[in-house]
Amino acid sequence: MSHTIQNKTKLTARVRRIAGQVDAIERALEAELGCADVLQLVASVRGAINGLTAELMEEHLQYHVVEAGSEAERQRGADELVEVIRTYLK
Amino acid sequence: MSHTIQNKTKLTARVRRIAGQVDAIERALEAELGCADVLQLVASVRGAINGLTAELMEEHLQYHVVEAGSEAERQRGADELVEVIRTYLK
Amino acid sequence: MSHTIQNKTKLTARVRRIAGQVDAIERALEAELGCADVLQLVASVRGAINGLTAELMEEHLQYHVVEAGSEAERQRGADELVEVIRTYLK
Amino acid sequence: MSHTIQNKTKLTARVRRIAGQVDAIERALEAELGCADVLQLVASVRGAINGLTAELMEEHLQYHVVEAGSEAERQRGADELVEVIRTYLK
Repeated sequence: MSHTIQNKTKLTARVRRIAGQVDAIERALEAELGCADVLQLVASVRGAINGLTAELMEEHLQYHVVEAGSEAERQRGADELVEVIRTYLK
Repeated sequence: MSHTIQNKTKLTARVRRIAGQVDAIERALEAELGCADVLQLVASVRGAINGLTAELMEEHLQYHVVEAGSEAERQRGADELVEVIRTYLK
Repeated sequence: MSHTIQNKTKLTARVRRIAGQVDAIERALEAELGCADVLQLVASVRGAINGLTAELMEEHLQYHVVEAGSEAERQRGADELVEVIRTYLK
Repeated sequence: MSHTIQNKTKLTARVRRIAGQVDAIERALEAELGCADVLQLVASVRGAINGLTAELMEEHLQYHVVEAGSEAERQRGADELVEVIRTYLK
Protein backbone atom coordinates (compact mmCIF):
# COMPACT_ATOMS: atom_id res chain seq x y z
CA MET A 1 0.00 0.00 0.00
CA SER A 2 2.81 2.43 -0.78
CA HIS A 3 0.95 3.99 -3.72
CA THR A 4 0.95 7.65 -2.82
CA ILE A 5 0.88 9.68 0.40
CA GLN A 6 -2.35 11.30 -0.77
CA ASN A 7 -4.13 7.96 -1.25
CA LYS A 8 -2.88 6.69 2.10
CA THR A 9 -4.32 9.72 3.90
CA LYS A 10 -7.66 9.26 2.13
CA LEU A 11 -7.80 5.51 2.89
CA THR A 12 -6.86 6.04 6.54
CA ALA A 13 -9.64 8.63 6.91
CA ARG A 14 -12.06 6.11 5.36
CA VAL A 15 -11.02 3.35 7.81
CA ARG A 16 -11.40 5.78 10.75
CA ARG A 17 -14.96 6.57 9.67
CA ILE A 18 -15.68 2.81 9.67
CA ALA A 19 -14.18 2.58 13.18
CA GLY A 20 -16.61 5.33 14.23
CA GLN A 21 -19.52 3.40 12.71
CA VAL A 22 -18.50 0.26 14.65
CA ASP A 23 -18.38 2.30 17.88
CA ALA A 24 -21.93 3.47 17.09
CA ILE A 25 -23.06 -0.19 17.03
CA GLU A 26 -21.53 -0.74 20.48
CA ARG A 27 -23.23 2.39 21.86
CA ALA A 28 -26.55 1.26 20.32
CA LEU A 29 -26.25 -2.08 22.12
CA GLU A 30 -25.45 -0.29 25.42
CA ALA A 31 -28.42 2.06 24.94
CA GLU A 32 -30.63 -0.97 24.21
CA LEU A 33 -31.83 0.38 20.88
CA GLY A 34 -34.30 -1.82 18.96
CA CYS A 35 -33.00 -4.74 16.86
CA ALA A 36 -34.04 -3.09 13.62
CA ASP A 37 -32.02 0.04 14.44
CA VAL A 38 -28.95 -1.97 15.41
CA LEU A 39 -29.22 -4.05 12.22
CA GLN A 40 -29.45 -0.82 10.22
CA LEU A 41 -26.16 0.38 11.75
CA VAL A 42 -24.54 -3.00 10.99
CA ALA A 43 -25.78 -2.79 7.38
CA SER A 44 -24.15 0.65 7.04
CA VAL A 45 -20.79 -0.80 8.17
CA ARG A 46 -21.18 -3.60 5.64
CA GLY A 47 -21.77 -1.03 2.89
CA ALA A 48 -18.72 0.98 3.99
CA ILE A 49 -16.54 -2.17 4.05
CA ASN A 50 -17.71 -3.05 0.52
CA GLY A 51 -16.85 0.47 -0.62
CA LEU A 52 -13.38 0.24 0.96
CA THR A 53 -12.83 -3.15 -0.71
CA ALA A 54 -13.75 -1.73 -4.13
CA GLU A 55 -11.42 1.24 -3.55
CA LEU A 56 -8.50 -1.02 -2.57
CA MET A 57 -9.10 -3.38 -5.52
CA GLU A 58 -9.22 -0.43 -7.93
CA GLU A 59 -5.97 1.01 -6.56
CA HIS A 60 -4.29 -2.39 -6.73
CA LEU A 61 -5.45 -2.84 -10.33
CA GLN A 62 -4.16 0.60 -11.31
CA TYR A 63 -0.79 0.62 -9.51
CA HIS A 64 0.20 -3.06 -9.51
CA VAL A 65 -1.28 -4.21 -12.83
CA VAL A 66 -1.89 -1.35 -15.29
CA GLU A 67 1.19 0.67 -14.20
CA ALA A 68 3.39 -2.30 -13.19
CA GLY A 69 7.11 -1.87 -13.97
CA SER A 70 7.53 -5.17 -15.81
CA GLU A 71 5.56 -8.04 -17.35
CA ALA A 72 6.42 -10.25 -14.35
CA GLU A 73 5.19 -7.64 -11.84
CA ARG A 74 2.02 -7.14 -13.89
CA GLN A 75 1.27 -10.87 -13.84
CA ARG A 76 1.99 -11.07 -10.10
CA GLY A 77 -0.29 -8.07 -9.42
CA ALA A 78 -3.05 -9.71 -11.47
CA ASP A 79 -2.63 -13.05 -9.67
CA GLU A 80 -3.00 -11.29 -6.30
CA LEU A 81 -6.19 -9.61 -7.51
CA VAL A 82 -7.57 -12.97 -8.68
CA GLU A 83 -7.06 -14.33 -5.14
CA VAL A 84 -9.07 -11.42 -3.71
CA ILE A 85 -11.86 -11.80 -6.30
CA ARG A 86 -12.16 -15.51 -5.40
CA THR A 87 -12.36 -14.69 -1.69
CA TYR A 88 -15.25 -12.32 -2.35
CA LEU A 89 -17.15 -14.44 -4.85
CA LYS A 90 -16.74 -17.94 -3.41
CA MET B 1 -32.05 -5.21 21.89
CA SER B 2 -33.33 -5.79 25.43
CA HIS B 3 -33.35 -9.57 25.02
CA THR B 4 -31.18 -10.68 27.89
CA ILE B 5 -28.20 -9.28 29.80
CA GLN B 6 -26.20 -12.37 28.80
CA ASN B 7 -26.81 -11.85 25.08
CA LYS B 8 -26.00 -8.17 25.36
CA THR B 9 -22.61 -8.94 26.94
CA LYS B 10 -21.86 -11.49 24.22
CA LEU B 11 -22.89 -9.14 21.40
CA THR B 12 -20.90 -6.24 22.86
CA ALA B 13 -17.79 -8.45 23.06
CA ARG B 14 -18.35 -9.42 19.41
CA VAL B 15 -18.62 -5.78 18.29
CA ARG B 16 -15.43 -4.91 20.24
CA ARG B 17 -13.55 -7.66 18.41
CA ILE B 18 -14.72 -6.12 15.11
CA ALA B 19 -13.50 -2.70 16.34
CA GLY B 20 -10.11 -4.33 16.98
CA GLN B 21 -10.09 -5.78 13.45
CA VAL B 22 -10.84 -2.32 11.98
CA ASP B 23 -7.95 -0.83 14.00
CA ALA B 24 -5.72 -3.54 12.50
CA ILE B 25 -6.63 -2.27 8.99
CA GLU B 26 -5.62 1.27 9.99
CA ARG B 27 -2.29 0.01 11.42
CA ALA B 28 -1.69 -2.03 8.24
CA LEU B 29 -2.15 1.12 6.13
CA GLU B 30 0.24 3.06 8.41
CA ALA B 31 2.81 0.23 8.19
CA GLU B 32 2.42 0.25 4.39
CA LEU B 33 1.61 -3.46 4.20
CA GLY B 34 0.98 -4.87 0.72
CA CYS B 35 -2.46 -4.44 -0.89
CA ALA B 36 -3.19 -8.15 -0.74
CA ASP B 37 -2.56 -8.22 3.03
CA VAL B 38 -4.74 -5.16 3.63
CA LEU B 39 -7.52 -6.65 1.49
CA GLN B 40 -7.29 -9.87 3.53
CA LEU B 41 -7.85 -7.87 6.74
CA VAL B 42 -10.81 -6.08 5.16
CA ALA B 43 -12.28 -9.43 4.07
CA SER B 44 -12.04 -10.71 7.65
CA VAL B 45 -14.03 -7.68 8.89
CA ARG B 46 -16.64 -8.35 6.21
CA GLY B 47 -16.94 -11.96 7.43
CA ALA B 48 -17.28 -10.81 11.04
CA ILE B 49 -19.95 -8.26 10.09
CA ASN B 50 -21.89 -10.97 8.24
CA GLY B 51 -21.65 -13.22 11.30
CA LEU B 52 -22.91 -10.40 13.56
CA THR B 53 -25.80 -9.74 11.16
CA ALA B 54 -26.82 -13.42 11.20
CA GLU B 55 -26.64 -13.44 15.02
CA LEU B 56 -28.81 -10.31 15.32
CA MET B 57 -31.35 -11.63 12.79
CA GLU B 58 -31.58 -14.95 14.65
CA GLU B 59 -32.11 -13.22 17.99
CA HIS B 60 -34.73 -10.93 16.49
CA LEU B 61 -36.53 -13.91 14.95
CA GLN B 62 -36.50 -15.79 18.25
CA TYR B 63 -37.46 -12.99 20.67
CA HIS B 64 -39.64 -10.71 18.53
CA VAL B 65 -41.35 -13.27 16.29
CA VAL B 66 -41.34 -16.81 17.75
CA GLU B 67 -41.73 -15.66 21.39
CA ALA B 68 -43.71 -12.45 20.69
CA GLY B 69 -46.37 -11.65 23.32
CA SER B 70 -49.25 -11.19 20.86
CA GLU B 71 -50.24 -11.77 17.23
CA ALA B 72 -49.81 -8.06 16.50
CA GLU B 73 -46.28 -8.01 17.99
CA ARG B 74 -45.39 -11.16 16.08
CA GLN B 75 -46.48 -9.60 12.78
CA ARG B 76 -44.60 -6.39 13.56
CA GLY B 77 -41.44 -8.36 14.45
CA ALA B 78 -41.73 -10.30 11.17
CA ASP B 79 -42.27 -7.10 9.15
CA GLU B 80 -39.10 -5.60 10.67
CA LEU B 81 -37.15 -8.74 9.73
CA VAL B 82 -38.49 -8.55 6.15
CA GLU B 83 -37.10 -5.00 5.90
CA VAL B 84 -33.67 -6.24 6.98
CA ILE B 85 -33.76 -9.20 4.56
CA ARG B 86 -34.59 -6.83 1.69
CA THR B 87 -31.71 -4.53 2.64
CA TYR B 88 -29.28 -7.46 2.47
CA LEU B 89 -30.63 -9.10 -0.66
CA LYS B 90 -31.48 -6.09 -2.85
CA MET C 1 -43.96 -24.48 -0.93
CA SER C 2 -47.66 -25.26 -0.65
CA HIS C 3 -48.57 -21.77 0.48
CA THR C 4 -51.15 -20.74 -2.08
CA ILE C 5 -51.83 -21.44 -5.76
CA GLN C 6 -51.53 -17.72 -6.49
CA ASN C 7 -48.08 -17.44 -4.93
CA LYS C 8 -46.91 -20.58 -6.73
CA THR C 9 -47.92 -19.15 -10.11
CA LYS C 10 -46.13 -15.89 -9.32
CA LEU C 11 -42.97 -17.66 -8.13
CA THR C 12 -42.93 -19.99 -11.16
CA ALA C 13 -43.19 -16.99 -13.50
CA ARG C 14 -40.31 -15.39 -11.64
CA VAL C 15 -38.11 -18.50 -12.00
CA ARG C 16 -38.94 -18.70 -15.73
CA ARG C 17 -37.79 -15.10 -16.20
CA ILE C 18 -34.51 -16.06 -14.52
CA ALA C 19 -34.22 -19.06 -16.90
CA GLY C 20 -34.66 -16.61 -19.79
CA GLN C 21 -31.90 -14.39 -18.38
CA VAL C 22 -29.54 -17.39 -18.13
CA ASP C 23 -30.31 -18.28 -21.78
CA ALA C 24 -29.38 -14.69 -22.69
CA ILE C 25 -25.93 -15.25 -21.13
CA GLU C 26 -25.44 -18.38 -23.28
CA ARG C 27 -26.49 -16.48 -26.43
CA ALA C 28 -24.13 -13.62 -25.51
CA LEU C 29 -21.23 -16.10 -25.25
CA GLU C 30 -22.18 -17.62 -28.63
CA ALA C 31 -22.39 -14.16 -30.21
CA GLU C 32 -18.98 -13.31 -28.70
CA LEU C 33 -20.23 -10.18 -26.97
CA GLY C 34 -17.64 -8.25 -24.96
CA CYS C 35 -16.72 -9.37 -21.44
CA ALA C 36 -18.26 -6.29 -19.86
CA ASP C 37 -21.62 -7.00 -21.55
CA VAL C 38 -21.59 -10.67 -20.51
CA LEU C 39 -20.69 -9.70 -16.93
CA GLN C 40 -23.59 -7.22 -16.93
CA LEU C 41 -25.99 -10.03 -17.89
CA VAL C 42 -24.54 -12.26 -15.16
CA ALA C 43 -24.97 -9.43 -12.62
CA SER C 44 -28.64 -9.13 -13.59
CA VAL C 45 -29.17 -12.87 -12.89
CA ARG C 46 -27.48 -12.43 -9.53
CA GLY C 47 -29.87 -9.58 -8.71
CA ALA C 48 -32.87 -11.66 -9.77
CA ILE C 49 -31.69 -14.63 -7.67
CA ASN C 50 -31.29 -12.33 -4.63
CA GLY C 51 -34.81 -11.01 -5.20
CA LEU C 52 -36.20 -14.56 -5.45
CA THR C 53 -34.38 -15.52 -2.25
CA ALA C 54 -35.85 -12.54 -0.37
CA GLU C 55 -39.34 -13.43 -1.70
CA LEU C 56 -39.03 -17.08 -0.59
CA MET C 57 -37.67 -16.10 2.85
CA GLU C 58 -40.52 -13.63 3.35
CA GLU C 59 -43.13 -16.23 2.39
CA HIS C 60 -41.53 -18.81 4.67
CA LEU C 61 -41.48 -16.31 7.55
CA GLN C 62 -45.15 -15.43 7.00
CA TYR C 63 -46.63 -18.91 6.42
CA HIS C 64 -44.36 -21.15 8.50
CA VAL C 65 -43.53 -18.83 11.41
CA VAL C 66 -46.05 -16.00 11.85
CA GLU C 67 -49.10 -18.07 10.82
CA ALA C 68 -47.81 -21.47 12.03
CA GLY C 69 -50.50 -23.76 13.49
CA SER C 70 -48.69 -24.50 16.75
CA GLU C 71 -45.77 -23.37 18.92
CA ALA C 72 -43.76 -26.42 17.77
CA GLU C 73 -44.37 -25.66 14.07
CA ARG C 74 -43.48 -22.03 14.64
CA GLN C 75 -40.16 -22.96 16.26
CA ARG C 76 -39.41 -25.45 13.45
CA GLY C 77 -40.21 -22.84 10.80
CA ALA C 78 -37.90 -20.35 12.54
CA ASP C 79 -35.09 -22.92 12.84
CA GLU C 80 -35.32 -23.61 9.08
CA LEU C 81 -35.09 -19.87 8.37
CA VAL C 82 -32.03 -19.59 10.63
CA GLU C 83 -30.31 -22.28 8.52
CA VAL C 84 -31.01 -20.27 5.36
CA ILE C 85 -29.81 -16.99 6.92
CA ARG C 86 -26.55 -18.70 7.94
CA THR C 87 -26.03 -20.05 4.41
CA TYR C 88 -26.38 -16.56 2.98
CA LEU C 89 -24.33 -14.69 5.59
CA LYS C 90 -21.49 -17.14 6.26
CA MET D 1 -15.54 -12.83 -25.09
CA SER D 2 -13.40 -13.83 -28.04
CA HIS D 3 -10.56 -15.06 -25.85
CA THR D 4 -10.19 -18.62 -27.06
CA ILE D 5 -12.46 -21.30 -28.49
CA GLN D 6 -11.51 -23.58 -25.60
CA ASN D 7 -12.56 -21.06 -22.97
CA LYS D 8 -15.81 -20.35 -24.80
CA THR D 9 -16.74 -24.04 -24.80
CA LYS D 10 -15.96 -24.29 -21.08
CA LEU D 11 -17.93 -21.16 -20.22
CA THR D 12 -20.91 -22.26 -22.33
CA ALA D 13 -20.96 -25.62 -20.53
CA ARG D 14 -20.88 -23.78 -17.22
CA VAL D 15 -23.83 -21.55 -18.18
CA ARG D 16 -25.81 -24.61 -19.34
CA ARG D 17 -25.29 -26.25 -15.95
CA ILE D 18 -26.69 -23.09 -14.32
CA ALA D 19 -29.68 -23.27 -16.71
CA GLY D 20 -30.23 -26.85 -15.50
CA GLN D 21 -30.10 -25.71 -11.87
CA VAL D 22 -32.71 -23.00 -12.57
CA ASP D 23 -34.97 -25.63 -14.18
CA ALA D 24 -34.60 -27.69 -11.00
CA ILE D 25 -36.00 -24.75 -8.99
CA GLU D 26 -39.03 -24.59 -11.29
CA ARG D 27 -39.59 -28.36 -10.94
CA ALA D 28 -39.25 -28.07 -7.15
CA LEU D 29 -41.97 -25.40 -7.10
CA GLU D 30 -44.22 -27.59 -9.30
CA ALA D 31 -43.61 -30.58 -7.01
CA GLU D 32 -44.41 -28.39 -3.99
CA LEU D 33 -41.15 -29.17 -2.22
CA GLY D 34 -40.65 -27.53 1.17
CA CYS D 35 -39.43 -23.92 1.35
CA ALA D 36 -36.11 -24.93 2.88
CA ASP D 37 -35.39 -27.31 -0.03
CA VAL D 38 -36.32 -24.69 -2.64
CA LEU D 39 -34.15 -22.09 -0.89
CA GLN D 40 -31.26 -24.57 -0.89
CA LEU D 41 -31.58 -24.95 -4.69
CA VAL D 42 -31.70 -21.16 -5.08
CA ALA D 43 -28.57 -20.84 -2.91
CA SER D 44 -26.75 -23.31 -5.19
CA VAL D 45 -27.59 -21.18 -8.26
CA ARG D 46 -26.28 -18.12 -6.40
CA GLY D 47 -23.03 -19.96 -5.70
CA ALA D 48 -22.72 -21.02 -9.36
CA ILE D 49 -23.39 -17.44 -10.55
CA ASN D 50 -20.69 -16.12 -8.20
CA GLY D 51 -18.27 -18.74 -9.55
CA LEU D 52 -19.09 -17.76 -13.15
CA THR D 53 -18.58 -14.09 -12.28
CA ALA D 54 -15.16 -14.79 -10.77
CA GLU D 55 -14.21 -16.84 -13.87
CA LEU D 56 -15.27 -14.07 -16.26
CA MET D 57 -13.50 -11.38 -14.24
CA GLU D 58 -10.30 -13.45 -14.16
CA GLU D 59 -10.40 -14.00 -17.93
CA HIS D 60 -11.08 -10.33 -18.54
CA LEU D 61 -8.16 -9.36 -16.27
CA GLN D 62 -5.82 -11.79 -18.06
CA TYR D 63 -6.78 -11.12 -21.69
CA HIS D 64 -7.84 -7.47 -21.65
CA VAL D 65 -5.48 -6.06 -19.01
CA VAL D 66 -2.37 -8.22 -18.47
CA GLU D 67 -2.05 -9.27 -22.13
CA ALA D 68 -3.54 -6.10 -23.69
CA GLY D 69 -1.90 -5.04 -26.95
CA SER D 70 -1.26 -1.42 -25.95
CA GLU D 71 -1.22 0.90 -22.94
CA ALA D 72 -4.53 2.41 -24.06
CA GLU D 73 -6.20 -1.01 -24.35
CA ARG D 74 -4.81 -2.01 -20.96
CA GLN D 75 -6.27 1.09 -19.31
CA ARG D 76 -9.62 0.55 -21.05
CA GLY D 77 -9.71 -3.11 -19.93
CA ALA D 78 -8.95 -2.04 -16.36
CA ASP D 79 -11.64 0.65 -16.42
CA GLU D 80 -14.20 -1.93 -17.56
CA LEU D 81 -13.18 -4.22 -14.70
CA VAL D 82 -13.54 -1.35 -12.21
CA GLU D 83 -17.13 -0.86 -13.40
CA VAL D 84 -17.87 -4.55 -12.73
CA ILE D 85 -16.19 -4.47 -9.29
CA ARG D 86 -18.33 -1.45 -8.33
CA THR D 87 -21.51 -3.22 -9.46
CA TYR D 88 -20.70 -6.17 -7.22
CA LEU D 89 -19.50 -4.25 -4.18
CA LYS D 90 -21.89 -1.29 -4.12
